[in-house]
Amino acid sequence: MEALVLERKDELSLREFPIERQEPLGPRDVRIALRRVGVCGSDVHYYTHGAIGPFVVKEPMILGHEAAGEVLEVGSQVTHLQAGDRVCMEPGIPDPNSKASRLGQYNLDPAVRFWATPPVHGILRPSCVHPADFTFKLPDNVSYAAGAMVEPLAVGVHAATMAQVKPGDVAVVIGAGPIGMVTILAAFAAGCARVIVADVQDPKLALAAKLGAVLPVNVKSQRLAEVVARETDGWGADVIFEASGNERAAAGVFELVCPGGKVVYIGMPLEPIRYDVVAAAVKETRVMHVFRYAHVYPRCVAMLASGQIDVTPLITDIFGFKDSIAAFEYAKDMPPSSVKVQIELGA
Amino acid sequence: MEALVLERKDELSLREFPIERQEPLGPRDVRIALRRVGVCGSDVHYYTHGAIGPFVVKEPMILGHEAAGEVLEVGSQVTHLQAGDRVCMEPGIPDPNSKASRLGQYNLDPAVRFWATPPVHGILRPSCVHPADFTFKLPDNVSYAAGAMVEPLAVGVHAATMAQVKPGDVAVVIGAGPIGMVTILAAFAAGCARVIVADVQDPKLALAAKLGAVLPVNVKSQRLAEVVARETDGWGADVIFEASGNERAAAGVFELVCPGGKVVYIGMPLEPIRYDVVAAAVKETRVMHVFRYAHVYPRCVAMLASGQIDVTPLITDIFGFKDSIAAFEYAKDMPPSSVKVQIELGA
Amino acid sequence: MEALVLERKDELSLREFPIERQEPLGPRDVRIALRRVGVCGSDVHYYTHGAIGPFVVKEPMILGHEAAGEVLEVGSQVTHLQAGDRVCMEPGIPDPNSKASRLGQYNLDPAVRFWATPPVHGILRPSCVHPADFTFKLPDNVSYAAGAMVEPLAVGVHAATMAQVKPGDVAVVIGAGPIGMVTILAAFAAGCARVIVADVQDPKLALAAKLGAVLPVNVKSQRLAEVVARETDGWGADVIFEASGNERAAAGVFELVCPGGKVVYIGMPLEPIRYDVVAAAVKETRVMHVFRYAHVYPRCVAMLASGQIDVTPLITDIFGFKDSIAAFEYAKDMPPSSVKVQIELGA
Amino acid sequence: MEALVLERKDELSLREFPIERQEPLGPRDVRIALRRVGVCGSDVHYYTHGAIGPFVVKEPMILGHEAAGEVLEVGSQVTHLQAGDRVCMEPGIPDPNSKASRLGQYNLDPAVRFWATPPVHGILRPSCVHPADFTFKLPDNVSYAAGAMVEPLAVGVHAATMAQVKPGDVAVVIGAGPIGMVTILAAFAAGCARVIVADVQDPKLALAAKLGAVLPVNVKSQRLAEVVARETDGWGADVIFEASGNERAAAGVFELVCPGGKVVYIGMPLEPIRYDVVAAAVKETRVMHVFRYAHVYPRCVAMLASGQIDVTPLITDIFGFKDSIAAFEYAKDMPPSSVKVQIELGA
Repeated sequence: MEALVLERKDELSLREFPIERQEPLGPRDVRIALRRVGVCGSDVHYYTHGAIGPFVVKEPMILGHEAAGEVLEVGSQVTHLQAGDRVCMEPGIPDPNSKASRLGQYNLDPAVRFWATPPVHGILRPSCVHPADFTFKLPDNVSYAAGAMVEPLAVGVHAATMAQVKPGDVAVVIGAGPIGMVTILAAFAAGCARVIVADVQDPKLALAAKLGAVLPVNVKSQRLAEVVARETDGWGADVIFEASGNERAAAGVFELVCPGGKVVYIGMPLEPIRYDVVAAAVKETRVMHVFRYAHVYPRCVAMLASGQIDVTPLITDIFGFKDSIAAFEYAKDMPPSSVKVQIELGA
Repeated sequence: MEALVLERKDELSLREFPIERQEPLGPRDVRIALRRVGVCGSDVHYYTHGAIGPFVVKEPMILGHEAAGEVLEVGSQVTHLQAGDRVCMEPGIPDPNSKASRLGQYNLDPAVRFWATPPVHGILRPSCVHPADFTFKLPDNVSYAAGAMVEPLAVGVHAATMAQVKPGDVAVVIGAGPIGMVTILAAFAAGCARVIVADVQDPKLALAAKLGAVLPVNVKSQRLAEVVARETDGWGADVIFEASGNERAAAGVFELVCPGGKVVYIGMPLEPIRYDVVAAAVKETRVMHVFRYAHVYPRCVAMLASGQIDVTPLITDIFGFKDSIAAFEYAKDMPPSSVKVQIELGA
Repeated sequence: MEALVLERKDELSLREFPIERQEPLGPRDVRIALRRVGVCGSDVHYYTHGAIGPFVVKEPMILGHEAAGEVLEVGSQVTHLQAGDRVCMEPGIPDPNSKASRLGQYNLDPAVRFWATPPVHGILRPSCVHPADFTFKLPDNVSYAAGAMVEPLAVGVHAATMAQVKPGDVAVVIGAGPIGMVTILAAFAAGCARVIVADVQDPKLALAAKLGAVLPVNVKSQRLAEVVARETDGWGADVIFEASGNERAAAGVFELVCPGGKVVYIGMPLEPIRYDVVAAAVKETRVMHVFRYAHVYPRCVAMLASGQIDVTPLITDIFGFKDSIAAFEYAKDMPPSSVKVQIELGA
Repeated sequence: MEALVLERKDELSLREFPIERQEPLGPRDVRIALRRVGVCGSDVHYYTHGAIGPFVVKEPMILGHEAAGEVLEVGSQVTHLQAGDRVCMEPGIPDPNSKASRLGQYNLDPAVRFWATPPVHGILRPSCVHPADFTFKLPDNVSYAAGAMVEPLAVGVHAATMAQVKPGDVAVVIGAGPIGMVTILAAFAAGCARVIVADVQDPKLALAAKLGAVLPVNVKSQRLAEVVARETDGWGADVIFEASGNERAAAGVFELVCPGGKVVYIGMPLEPIRYDVVAAAVKETRVMHVFRYAHVYPRCVAMLASGQIDVTPLITDIFGFKDSIAAFEYAKDMPPSSVKVQIELGA
């Protein structure tokens, strides 16, 4: 089986990798032929840095975790899927008996095994075995490309769900990278009337502005707090989604939010931020932190199928599997007008 | 001032009515020229029955409470509005010092004074005086027609807000009358991926089907519970909005809802319903009751302005003010393809 | 192994029952010697009626599901328990992979296997095997008697948790049977300042009055709605817990609750109730239904250990295992001053 | 009228102050003779620093805002109070028509007028005029001393209410000053099974340990995170109440909280804290900020009356009004075994 292998920091190969025989099909599993895989910032980061925080690439590891494919074979107890089904897959598999899983918060289980996170292999390869409970059928009108977007989309939808967005809210999304973009889509799907989006790159803001009633703010030339105050008659925005991971932006949220409003931190600043408790107190801000997602995959598929959410404007670049290494080279140094690079397999 | 007056049950006149001099402009009030008024089922019910429950028409009363208009004059302390502004108005005015108001639930204040609810006059007349706090500016791209739809829309948006709809939910809306229709719009705005709508009239179902990813079910020929089970893989729908007021439909909701799901009663059955506590218990159904709305008018205006919600398909019939009585005759016996009758004033 | 066997409706025997060899110890299981078992109304109902709703006793079945005991042996993967530990056990075992379980609502899993619910045997026998995940260690200061009370207590604590009782709430508890009593304890533990309890038996009300700031109301001589109105300055109570299962009482809750207040149905009326949607609407009552409990066993144990809750006043009658049949005869026709009958094993 | 006047930083006088004639009795007001007033840290801070943040003492100002008294006279529209009633008073009066007030969050109204916050006078004087809506009757069994404790208690109860404490929660309270102490009481009233309290002063910890199932931790000799891990089997505490205002303590909360748990910041660090978004993210911590309180005064009075909360252990020092200046001198440099200093008036 040929796979895209990160041999070590800065070195990728497309080569045979003997992973298949390590993957017997359990009674609750399915075997899936990969068809479309998105390249995530974390994949690129492992490539360029060899590690993310405590997760260090010590052995050659297959990359990729944003995936859609076709079911080849199902285990003996699987009833809701069958060979030929088009599916997308949730990349993190928790221990169903952990305390967090039993409470319904499986994303917080420290024992989660997540694709392309050392020492777990990813799925830039022809096929994989996956638990059926974390494999979701795509309706006919949801493409493999859209199916492979469910992974990043789920981050935005989980954030908007946790924020309990109310119909008619005004949201601010800080950062117009891929996660900022899906958060805009999720914010609208969850009920926002308007989204103010902040970034430093005009091409990204231009693309964001096409996603709905979006007001783009380039924070290099405009003061975000002034724009928000003007647009909300001085009251502030109902929800702030921090999706930039920038320390300074993450510290500035309390100036933007309305009394009793909410802040959701999605981005992960490298360093602790300067957090003004007094500024948050006088508004009784409710601050939420999100980690990946839980229970939202089928919801994302349903919204793609019904047209509530359209991710196609975000898929800006497609490479063939043979060109996977080129795809990573491109993603490493992506033009500001690009959002999501995907790789097509076995077409 | 000429007004549409319900003289008594079954008798309407369009005649001079000396209400204006009873309405001095207080410092926090605005005077408004009415431009568009919707005809609500309750207006028609007062006309045909002379009463709704404990509210009995004992003196001649002006009808109408779904209104948009133009500001003529503002009180000395009003700062957010000025003459010439296009506005819509919330028809119920609570006591700001009541316990319910102070808790933020002003719609539950028993002292609310509500237009066209005896003994309070409605606004099918050239002008009225209204508190500025309950008067909301319409942006340029929201028509008077849409502004006059905010009143019924607010019922649906309040219901969807109370239900805490989550992105990707499947909802069932029972009843495709005007309130069912705005509830469909609100359910989508609040995050539903799909809405299954039930009614007995095909023209209403056909119109509902145009409002989004809607599956219409005529319950004269199809069993709703079977459709819901099939469409949700046997799990049930996340939220049931009961908007028919039909006793039997209102009793049947627990067969439709998923474990841990929600039921929102919007319709008001005339008689107590047969309510199966055991059926609700095994699913731990959360049941909500809603009464009018609170705090949602500006949210509705924002969603109309941004395009999140489009009410124009629901405005099916327009009459001139001179033809107000004809409008009520029409509304009394409306064809199933009609949803909302509006009356145009002072154009 | 000698067990208390319901041979059929109206016939109990204390006899050898060959269940032990059917119960191998799995790697995540523990083997437990029973020490104290409470007699529940459902046990008595199976004895006197042979069935509860769809659950019919077709084969001889061991009774009992409110249990505490001592660990005899633990499976190979069990780390948080060891032989000699004193424990209480949750009687319902869900499928950890069901949709409801994964969502954190395992009590709603239709596949739950629940002790002493046909065809599952109960635990009025010397020992049993149970999953360690549903077995909870009792601290030294929590007796076996209190441990066996966790099962009914969990019903009240789950109800109070679902109701999101706020500090200073006034609650009404309808019904002063065992479930009403534990609901009073749970309501106080959850923050209620006062509880008004309604019943028809003075001895039960007298016992309830000893559980805290309780106002007992005998509804044979007093009108509950009048008492509630007087005690709350006409506003109504914040939460109504319906624990009687009486159809008429269950229909009368909306007269008792305050605007924006909550009703929790715990009791299970045999017939659908007459439910007044309009009365609920004008107060926007939030109605909750509860089914058993989920995730509250360790919380109950913690509150018993810390003294937040004291169940000892409720344990009114204790029988030896040899007198189990007499215990059931007593429980079948219990004096109004009795609340909970327990059976002591293997002392 | 003799009053305790802060003339300027570091200078107090007990002297005639002509405030009474500035206070006419409006129709919704009551006139109250002060009976007991607590000394708050903010009173002392104005004395020793002349300012708190942007609030600067520029004119002589009467101190005191924790108050109970006796009604002397009521306005023409006041129906729920009468002369002779014993009462406590909420010190912050919002604009009832502000947006925050209408939403039910009057504590967030920037226009709130709060006693003893420049330029608003406090109530260390014989009498005052106050809105009846913010004046609460004390039942016979609640003393003036307890009534004057409602103000600080309300801070703790509001925090516990916002945190939606669940029955059986384990809480950590950081800081055992007056606010930490009332937070411990509120945490138990709201359902906590156990409270772990952290401070640096042993006498405070000893007093805290008497308030219930409290585990005191002196962080000079013990590592709080280790204690919490040990006491919760490595899971973490359900709720962390930060009541010290210490920057380092406020930054350390994420090590203490369980997955999906809550942090409530009550204390107000002078400087922004180093806030670790990643540590909060992996646990999806919900962070709440609280500002004073709203709607909790009557709840506090009810819990004092019913015995759910007992504040008497916290009232450690009482001075006569004639000795007010001595009381402030004492409070300025209070021994660690003291919690709350009160001043008795007009006995």
